[in-house]
Formats: sequence, structure tokens, C-alpha cells
Amino acid sequence: MATSSTRGKAHRLLDPQRGGRVGRAIDLAIMTLILLSIVAIVLRTVDPVAARYGAVFTQFERVTVAMFTLEYLGRLWSITTAEKYRHPVTGRLKYAATPYMLIDLLAILPFYLGGVVDLRFIRVLRLLRIFRVMKVARYSNALRTIGTVLRKKRPDLVITVVVTSMLLVLTSSAMYYVEHAAQPEAFSSIPATFWWGFVTLTTVGYGDVFPITPLGQVLAGFSAFLGVGLFALPASILASGFIEEASEPNDEEWDYCPHCGEPLQNDRSH
Amino acid sequence: MATSSTRGKAHRLLDPQRGGRVGRAIDLAIMTLILLSIVAIVLRTVDPVAARYGAVFTQFERVTVAMFTLEYLGRLWSITTAEKYRHPVTGRLKYAATPYMLIDLLAILPFYLGGVVDLRFIRVLRLLRIFRVMKVARYSNALRTIGTVLRKKRPDLVITVVVTSMLLVLTSSAMYYVEHAAQPEAFSSIPATFWWGFVTLTTVGYGDVFPITPLGQVLAGFSAFLGVGLFALPASILASGFIEEASEPNDEEWDYCPHCGEPLQNDRSH
Amino acid sequence: MATSSTRGKAHRLLDPQRGGRVGRAIDLAIMTLILLSIVAIVLRTVDPVAARYGAVFTQFERVTVAMFTLEYLGRLWSITTAEKYRHPVTGRLKYAATPYMLIDLLAILPFYLGGVVDLRFIRVLRLLRIFRVMKVARYSNALRTIGTVLRKKRPDLVITVVVTSMLLVLTSSAMYYVEHAAQPEAFSSIPATFWWGFVTLTTVGYGDVFPITPLGQVLAGFSAFLGVGLFALPASILASGFIEEASEPNDEEWDYCPHCGEPLQNDRSH
Amino acid sequence: MATSSTRGKAHRLLDPQRGGRVGRAIDLAIMTLILLSIVAIVLRTVDPVAARYGAVFTQFERVTVAMFTLEYLGRLWSITTAEKYRHPVTGRLKYAATPYMLIDLLAILPFYLGGVVDLRFIRVLRLLRIFRVMKVARYSNALRTIGTVLRKKRPDLVITVVVTSMLLVLTSSAMYYVEHAAQPEAFSSIPATFWWGFVTLTTVGYGDVFPITPLGQVLAGFSAFLGVGLFALPASILASGFIEEASEPNDEEWDYCPHCGEPLQNDRSH
Repeated sequence: MATSSTRGKAHRLLDPQRGGRVGRAIDLAIMTLILLSIVAIVLRTVDPVAARYGAVFTQFERVTVAMFTLEYLGRLWSITTAEKYRHPVTGRLKYAATPYMLIDLLAILPFYLGGVVDLRFIRVLRLLRIFRVMKVARYSNALRTIGTVLRKKRPDLVITVVVTSMLLVLTSSAMYYVEHAAQPEAFSSIPATFWWGFVTLTTVGYGDVFPITPLGQVLAGFSAFLGVGLFALPASILASGFIEEASEPNDEEWDYCPHCGEPLQNDRSH
Repeated sequence: MATSSTRGKAHRLLDPQRGGRVGRAIDLAIMTLILLSIVAIVLRTVDPVAARYGAVFTQFERVTVAMFTLEYLGRLWSITTAEKYRHPVTGRLKYAATPYMLIDLLAILPFYLGGVVDLRFIRVLRLLRIFRVMKVARYSNALRTIGTVLRKKRPDLVITVVVTSMLLVLTSSAMYYVEHAAQPEAFSSIPATFWWGFVTLTTVGYGDVFPITPLGQVLAGFSAFLGVGLFALPASILASGFIEEASEPNDEEWDYCPHCGEPLQNDRSH
Repeated sequence: MATSSTRGKAHRLLDPQRGGRVGRAIDLAIMTLILLSIVAIVLRTVDPVAARYGAVFTQFERVTVAMFTLEYLGRLWSITTAEKYRHPVTGRLKYAATPYMLIDLLAILPFYLGGVVDLRFIRVLRLLRIFRVMKVARYSNALRTIGTVLRKKRPDLVITVVVTSMLLVLTSSAMYYVEHAAQPEAFSSIPATFWWGFVTLTTVGYGDVFPITPLGQVLAGFSAFLGVGLFALPASILASGFIEEASEPNDEEWDYCPHCGEPLQNDRSH
Repeated sequence: MATSSTRGKAHRLLDPQRGGRVGRAIDLAIMTLILLSIVAIVLRTVDPVAARYGAVFTQFERVTVAMFTLEYLGRLWSITTAEKYRHPVTGRLKYAATPYMLIDLLAILPFYLGGVVDLRFIRVLRLLRIFRVMKVARYSNALRTIGTVLRKKRPDLVITVVVTSMLLVLTSSAMYYVEHAAQPEAFSSIPATFWWGFVTLTTVGYGDVFPITPLGQVLAGFSAFLGVGLFALPASILASGFIEEASEPNDEEWDYCPHCGEPLQNDRSH
């Protein structure tokens, strides 16, 4: 009973919406820690900084990973208080498989596995919660509207992505056959030509690969025009979404999970 | 009579909308085959992969082309069941001239003609049907809306394309006269300068050709600004199209052909 | 009196809206000639083509310039029939100063002045009239809508252009002071740095000039972000324009000049 | 009393909205001076021009800085007439801390501090007032609408900027770990990789740094796609803002400060 009560308390405290003042303070502390650990990761890759403050960084890394591990385990331990994740084993596994928990796990696991890649920067995604935690109505409303629009227009956006991928395959395959003879190095295979396709359709245009035959240049020109046109689609789809949203009465579709306090991403699941 | 009945059955089976369960299964099988054959085409151009699995690819190519040929001939043979393509010769020729059938023909013909270019990747366009075949209402609705908007706004988009082409001619011709003396190689002729125009108006900017004279740079700057502005036009035109569409009652304009089950692209024709 | 009648007839014939069948035929002929002369100008700059068909091109150029001159003089001669340009001298000068006539003059003058630059490509702008002359309702409606939106939203677009120019001055001046010491060649002066500003704000990014100092790179990053943001403004302004236009009853604001048949560009003047 | 009256007059004269004809003339003169001084700053960096007219520029600089200083001091001296900045010391300090005054200070201070960087180009921002001062209703309306939309949609735009920054951190950190081994020079540290991230997410693509490993290229492709998608957000957010604004009755939210005549930027403060 006592344990269960401690667990319920822990669960509430790790939930900024229901943890009251202390819970909010813990959340802000965790977010500050995330921010600091990201700054540390970024700065550590600068050689002169690493040479001078290497020991400090190693120490700080140990501390932050320890805190993140504690928070992760705390969440996992106390989640059984929530109705949805009640079962001690399967409930916890289900909870561990939510995107938020997976990101948190990825952010600490490499440290224990002795990996050279520090993935804690992945946690940067959690910082987005700042807008909702800060209880600034205008910002959380805006965030909710953006979320609603993205969710309502997901089919349209998925179709745009699929069409763009098809255009990428079509245009890169054609370009390979056109340009391979003239530039066997740059356009060595279709998968290699995908790089050219990406760089052209997004209009980035690094300039490391580009067609030099007249036919290839005409093809590239058309691809770029189509690419620009395709990228007009999501902008206009989202625009119509925002306008529909503005003219509709707010039906509070986007909400917090009543059990664990995590934001519901769509269809009432995490 | 028996043949006619077999033909009607074949026609229905090759039509995912009317073929029932079996027809849908056939359609899914064909789409899987298309996907696999595209993967094969793409991977085969990678030298180490081709060296190792060359024989497998050759075998797989024969099988897929055989299946595509069978499907193509099956459609052509059974199409006379449809009211619109009733006549055994002219009906079939008319049907063979529809975009879908031309794409399918282009996708298999090079194999028989012994061409070195494998055009089966063209079939990637057919994969778009996945959204409609899967009967996921949200996706097929979204696809229909996009189609309706593109069709309704076609005049505006055509005008945008024409104006952009004019800008391309104007700007490239002017650039040729300005820059030819300074860079006779890169700006060797007006058609060659079109390449610069494409790369600049779409803001790709590979960096292989760019003006070096002050006048040429001013001209390039204005062209790029105009180009960016022009590309704001389709985005805004489509946005207004999506909003009009959302506020209008759905009048089911985009539909399947009642005869052959292919999607009607516009004005009730294929 | 007879001359005046001939002049009225000429004026009507050179006006596709009022010239009836013959007038429309003349207009189409002129447009075909414009198209052909542009093709000739473009092709002539290709050396092998010029070497082979040089004489043909010279001959064709003489013919087209002669025709354009005739048309230009015909318009100028007959314009006094129009109420607005009644006066034989000042009326004609006023008419000659309209954009359309200036373009036409620029397109033929270099030939007589023995200039090496062939400016007839400027006439490409006149080809836009094809949509209106062809009397295809959907296209001329779309063209009218685009014209109306561009005119109504002109103040917003002008402000966008002014703000962008200010950003260009600000960002290029700052970049000059930051980067001049490190790259005295590429960032030799503020006007020279404008080239970098153009290339960055439009996101073309040729790659011939870019900052290499950390401060310069931060500045360039912010400029590019601001640039992309600024270019979101015209798209959204035009989108709102198109939507307003679609929801308003058509008030036929954009029209032909009742006197000369040229399209009225804004405020009922040419 | 006399001084106070002189001060009130000075305050009114330096306020184009309330200074009447003389005030407007002064404002126009100042703006012309700003424009000329910017032209001088820009031209002076061109070596041949500086070599020839160096003395003229030095003289002109002294004159303009003197005038700007006078205007700055005049504003600071007379501001106590305004209710809001009444207190001779704290009122003036508060006024000096407004963005407009800070810009003006930055524009003249380097001259007195003997700095080599001429920051007067910062004053280019003040030229935006031309639209409002000129009393051209259409332009000041458009400017007010743009201001209102930007203010109303600020939360959405801030979220977009935050999300983009997160994407920059995520994508650059990941790219560093992927590409560092292959290109230790270009991707030397995460902060250095931010440069690549900026150049890619904005689709500028100078071409000085780009991934060469397949994994890095896939990552770059996804980043660019996400970047393009993210930049569709502000365009669509602003579009919905303009449309809401157009359909709402004008409630005159954006106005001049009743005390000092400076435009109120938001929430009735400068």
C-alpha cells in the first residue's frame, strides 16, 4: 500500500499537468538539464574545448545520464498507476514502446553500451513541451492548432510525400540512363543518382553533381520545375487547413492523456 | 459466347473496382510486382550488386516482363467488353492510346526491342492507385480533392507555366548578350544559357554557370527575385483552390470510368 | 475623308477585339511571326547553326523586322482614330510612350541602329495575349483574376519588395564588414557583397561566394532564414488575394481599353 | 516655461504625425539624409571611388553624423513633453531604450568611438516609415495589415522558428556523427556542422560542404525535405492570417503612439 502510494505520488510528480508546483519544478529542471546536456554534446565536439574541459564534460555527462536514467526508471516504475498501463510487465513494455519513452531510452542507452555516438541530442524534441508546460495560453493554442492541422491534413501530406518519392524515382532513373555515359563517376548507378534527385527536387543544388548533356539538362530543368510545383502543394494544403481550423469552433480534439499526462498525438493514443 | 463470357470475367478481374476479392488480389499482386521490378531496376545499376546477382536479375526481369505483357495483353483482349471500346480493332487501338496503356506499353517494349534502357520504372506512376484501391476513405478523398483542385485551377497553372517560360526566354536571352563576351564557354549560345535560366529561376543554383560581370549579376539578381515571386503564384493559386473546394459541397466530380474502372482524370475521359 | 476612313479601318484591323475575323487573323499572324523570330534569335546564337544557315537567318531577320516596322508604323499612324490619342502629334507621342509601344520600338530599333544586340526577344511579352485573343473563356478569366489580384495586392507586394531590399542592404553591409578581412577578393566592397546577398536571400546559392568566418556564417544563416521567411509573405498575400477574389462577385474591373483595344493594366490607363 | 514651450515645439516638429507641414518636411529631409548616407557608405567601400572621392565622403560623413546626432539629441531632449516619458532622467533612459532610439544610437556611436565599422546602414530600417509618412492610404493600410498579421500569428511563427532550430540541432548533430570520419575538415565539430545545416535547411546549398557517404546523403535528403516542409508552415500560417484579417472588420489595433508619434509595434508599447 505504502509503495503503491509512493508510486502514485512519483507518477503525479513526473507529470507536469498533474504534479502541481513540485511536478512543474521537476519538469523545468529536467528540461534545463536536457538543454545543458545538448549544449555540452555540441561543445564537446569542438577540439580545443574538448582538450581543455574534457574532464568536466565527462563528469557532466555521467551526472546527466544518471539523472536521465533515474527519470526514465521512475517513469517506468510509476506508470502502472495509470489505468492504461496497469499490468506490471506488459503495461510497462507498452509504455516503454511509446515514442517519448523510446526517445528517452535512445538518449541514454549509448552511454551504457559504450557507444562513441552520443544520442542525447535526440532529447531536443522534448523541449517542444516548453510551450505547453509554460501555460502561456497563446503558445499552447498555436501549438494545438498546428498539431490539429497537421493531423487533419495528414492524408494530403502523405500523398504529397508519395508523389514526390515517385517523382524522385522517375526522374533519377531517367537521369541515370541519360547521363551515365557522359559522367560515369557522378551518375554511377540509380541509387547514386537519387542523391542528385534529392538535391535538385528540394532546390538545394550543392553543385557536386549536375547533368552536362543537353538532354540531361532539359530533364533536370523539368524536374526542378516539377519539384518546385510539388512543394507548392504542402504549403497550399496547410494553408487551407489553417483557414478551415480558424473558421471552425474549437472542439478541443488535441488533449493530454488523462492517465499519464503525455500529449495525445492522434486518435487518443500516444 | 463462352469466349465472350471468359473475356467479361477477365475484364472484371483486371478491374480492382469491380473484380471483387479476386480482382483486388490480382491488382495488389501486380502492384507488388511493379514495386519489386522497380527495386530490381534500381539495384541492378549498382555494379557490385549486378556482378554478384546478375543472373538472378536477368531471370527476374524475364518473369516480370512476361507478367506485365500478359496483363497488358489481357487488358487489351478483354477491353472490348466495355461499351466505350467495343470495336475489336478501333476500340482496342483507342484503349491502347490511353495514358495508362501507353505507360504500360513503354514499360515492356524496350525489353523486346533489345533496348539497353529499362523503362519499367515508368510504371511507378501506377503505384499512386494504391490509395484508391486500398479503400481507405481518407486517402482516396484527399487524392480526389487534390485532383479536383489541380483540374479546376489548370488554366491558372498553365498561365503560370507560360509566364515562367517567357521569363526564361527573356532573362536567358538578355543574359546571353550581357555575359557572352566575358564567359564565351559557359554562355556560348542562348539555348545553352537556358540552362543557367532554369537553374536560377528554380533557385537550384548548382554553381556551374553564373554571371561574373556586374550587369550580369544585377540581371541574375532580378531574375531570381522574379523567379521566387512567380513560384509564389502556383502556391497561392492552389491554396485558394483547396479553400474553395473545402467550402463547397462535394459534388463527386472525380470518379472511376464506369466501363474500364480506370480513374477519370478530367472531363470524364481518361 | 477617305484617308480617315482607311485609317479607321486599319485601326480596327490592328485591334484583335474589334477587327473581326480579319483582325484576329492579322493578330495571329503577328504572334506567329513573333514566335518564329524569337526561335530564330535563339537558334542563331548557336555557332554551328549560324555557320550553316547564317544567310537564311539574315534574310528572315530583315523580313520580320520589316513586318514589325510596318505594324508599328500602322498602329502609330491609325491611333489618332482613338478618342484618347486624337491629336496627330501629342496623341501619337503619348501612344508611343505606352509600355506596349515602347517594347515594340525596342524590338525593332537595334536593327536600324546597327546594334549587335537583337532585342526582338522582348516581344515575347506580347505572346501573353494569346490567352485573351483565343477567346477561351476559362483562360481569359484566369488571366483576368491573376491580373486583378496582382493589382489589388500591389501595395502589399511593393512593401515586400522594399523590405526585402532593406534586408539586402542591411545584410550585405554587415557581411562586408564581417567577411572583408578574411576574403578581400569575394567581399571586395558593399556593392560587390550585394551579389552574395542576392544569391543568399533568394536561396539560389551558386556557391561562388560564401562566408568562411564563424560570425559571417551565423549572419548568413540568419539572412537565409529571414529571406525564406520574407518570400513566404508574397505567397500568403497572393493567396489571400485569390481567395478574396473568388468570394467576391466579379465586377469586371479589368477590361480592354474601349479606344485602342489594348488591355487596361490598372486604373483604366495602359 | 519658454524652454518647455520650445521643447514641446521641438517634440512636435520631430513627430511627422503631429508636426504639420514643417514636421513632415523635417522628416522627409531626415529620410533623404539617411538614404544619401547609406549610398555614401555603400559606395565608399568601392576602392576606386574611395581613392578619388575619399575626402568628399569623409566630409559628408561628418555632416550626416552631425545631423543625426542633433536629431537624436533633439528627440531625447524634447521627449519629456510626452506623458509616458515625463521624468527627465528615467523617462529619457526609457525612451533611449526603445528599438528606434537604439538603432539611431548604434548608427552614430561608432563614428565617435573611432570604430572602423560604419553602422549607419542600420538606419535603413527607418526608411520603412516612408509608406506611413507619405499618407498614401493604400500603402499605410497594407503596412498595417502586414503588421497586424505578423503580430497575431507571432506564437505560430515563434513555434516554427523553435521547431526549425530543433531540427537544425538534431540534423546537424546526427550529420556530424555520420560524416565526421569521412570529412574531418568540413564536418570538424557539431557547431561547424550547423553551417551545413543552415545551408541545407534553407535550401541555399552553396556547395562548400555536403555529405559524401551514402548514409550522410540519405540524412541530408530527409533534412532538406523536412526543411522545405517546415518553410511551408510560415507561408500557410501567414496566408490564414491575411485571410482572417481581410474578413474581419478593421478594428484599428495598430496605431501611432499618442505621445511620441512612433508606431506602436505591439501591445501598445514601442
